[in-house]
Amino acid sequence: MRIRELVRSFEPYRVVEEDYPIRLDKNESPYDLPGWVKEEIFEELRELSFNRYPHITSMPAREAVASFYGLSPENVAVGNGGDELIGYLVRLFEGDYVVTTPPTFGMYSFYAKLEKVPVVEVPLREDFTIDGDAIAEKAGNARVVFIASPNNPTGNSQPEEEIVRVLDTGKPVVLDEAYAEFAGRSLWRLIEEYPNLIVLRTFSKAFSLAGVRAGYFLANEEVVDALYRIKSPFSVGIMTVAAVKVVLRHYDLVERRVAKIVEERERIRRAFREFTYPSDANFLLMRLDAYEFLLEKGIVVRKLSGRLDGHIRVTVGRKWENRKLVEALREYLEVEGCG
Amino acid sequence: MRIRELVRSFEPYRVVEEDYPIRLDKNESPYDLPGWVKEEIFEELRELSFNRYPHITSMPAREAVASFYGLSPENVAVGNGGDELIGYLVRLFEGDYVVTTPPTFGMYSFYAKLEKVPVVEVPLREDFTIDGDAIAEKAGNARVVFIASPNNPTGNSQPEEEIVRVLDTGKPVVLDEAYAEFAGRSLWRLIEEYPNLIVLRTFSKAFSLAGVRAGYFLANEEVVDALYRIKSPFSVGIMTVAAVKVVLRHYDLVERRVAKIVEERERIRRAFREFTYPSDANFLLMRLDAYEFLLEKGIVVRKLSGRLDGHIRVTVGRKWENRKLVEALREYLEVEGCG
Repeated sequence: MRIRELVRSFEPYRVVEEDYPIRLDKNESPYDLPGWVKEEIFEELRELSFNRYPHITSMPAREAVASFYGLSPENVAVGNGGDELIGYLVRLFEGDYVVTTPPTFGMYSFYAKLEKVPVVEVPLREDFTIDGDAIAEKAGNARVVFIASPNNPTGNSQPEEEIVRVLDTGKPVVLDEAYAEFAGRSLWRLIEEYPNLIVLRTFSKAFSLAGVRAGYFLANEEVVDALYRIKSPFSVGIMTVAAVKVVLRHYDLVERRVAKIVEERERIRRAFREFTYPSDANFLLMRLDAYEFLLEKGIVVRKLSGRLDGHIRVTVGRKWENRKLVEALREYLEVEGCG
Repeated sequence: MRIRELVRSFEPYRVVEEDYPIRLDKNESPYDLPGWVKEEIFEELRELSFNRYPHITSMPAREAVASFYGLSPENVAVGNGGDELIGYLVRLFEGDYVVTTPPTFGMYSFYAKLEKVPVVEVPLREDFTIDGDAIAEKAGNARVVFIASPNNPTGNSQPEEEIVRVLDTGKPVVLDEAYAEFAGRSLWRLIEEYPNLIVLRTFSKAFSLAGVRAGYFLANEEVVDALYRIKSPFSVGIMTVAAVKVVLRHYDLVERRVAKIVEERERIRRAFREFTYPSDANFLLMRLDAYEFLLEKGIVVRKLSGRLDGHIRVTVGRKWENRKLVEALREYLEVEGCG
């Protein structure tokens, strides 16, 4: 028995698992589902048969998402988190490589590597926007191009005209809008115009369902059909489906919470404007090498590297968490002598 | 945009989705979780944060399974159904092809094909047992050998000495024991002796959790470590983990239900001994071409093909369902003039 070289070349996952009082490292919503929403999920589940397999292609979940958008379920695919869908999206299309735009979400290249597909990188410009022309130039024989908007970890939305420039190549484009609710805008309607556009969304951020793992994409029927040819049958469980159905019924709650998070985000940004990039997401990129300092104060944030060496990514938390964060960062700046 | 030829070569899934009064087609448990067990799951979930990602490598679920067996969590991997784990198991090891023993569970070759790994078939003997020597002969450069025991769709357990013969090759062997609870025996303890043995189990059958999708394997630390290098992070949601923890606390209930199912299985078999193979699982293989006849009576079973053309696979249901099945099959035999 020998483990494949490829498998061994992946590092074991490491995250800070210890208990710290303030977790601002995973871009989660700081708000749990209210008790009454959980009870609604349980109420759904009391009526369901746990002993029976879920629908083979998750039709009830796809219908719930479709009706939220006024689309057909044939345009919707649902997965155990957006991640699972990315793993399939690198396998659906003809082409020799995958295009990514670093610095961006790491899972695009993770899944490409696992599938042994080379990754062609078209770095973001100095201001973290994508260069549509440069991507289009490299898209020639790409399986798929991944664009995140708002981008993680930089927080900025990508300009529509640059995205359209890439879409016009006709190559498959995954537009990862995991944080779109915080930006207040989405390009999902372009799927009607562009059969090569796949808009990836998640319930893990604005919808407070990171623990449940549910994501979806909106795309042309042909793409959805292709996905369900190779996706594990029955893969999305009834508990996940029930959670998705219930949270979609309470979008007003999501909107109220998003508004609070956006307000807090701007408050933190104003406090450290000099060191903080504008953000359309629920996190902020800061040019502050304060990871260890914050950790000592019991605040976990994300330490970045490479082009973003010396930067941290800070998830917007609850008001009291943000207050502690601001205090700690002020102290950091004083200690560092740049406050 | 072009969908890969490989992807298009997979048929879209088709299952009988219409409402029929009696479903004996998917080897599910006929018993839902009792209401009070569901309530215990909800009680767990009330305490959990839906907005936070689950543990990155599902440690709480692995600990629950590990303590059930008296193993270390380093020997346990948990997935969204056994299926998801099969998808990874065809990718973990060095080797040029996968070995299967048809007629057997179709997902081994499904995932091998998706990974573009050839499948070498070593057919079961006339009596549906595996031929350990023949498999060993073909195992030379295999990535992994899949053996199901009890086998689906034939129902028989595989002889331990034949399995050991294959294990002695040192090649990775996935022993799929999805139905082991109904056989009343398991070879999981052999993982201590054979670092190349991966015992795959599921909560979808005896544990009544098909709807939730949870499976696991027991294996050497090296195999578990390799899996978690490439498995999607955070992939098993907190609702799934809660369900697993709760059902493991009530194994006595599982045992009582298994006993009932086994009793019913033998009752059905006695009624049609001439046409029915012995089974160690929660289903029966019958040499009766009665699929359409039963469907007209509102009973869905599994129609088989290839070497098992003219056979059906019948899941053992509740007492009243089995009674209806027996009546319908008696009628079928009368109509066919062989009763």
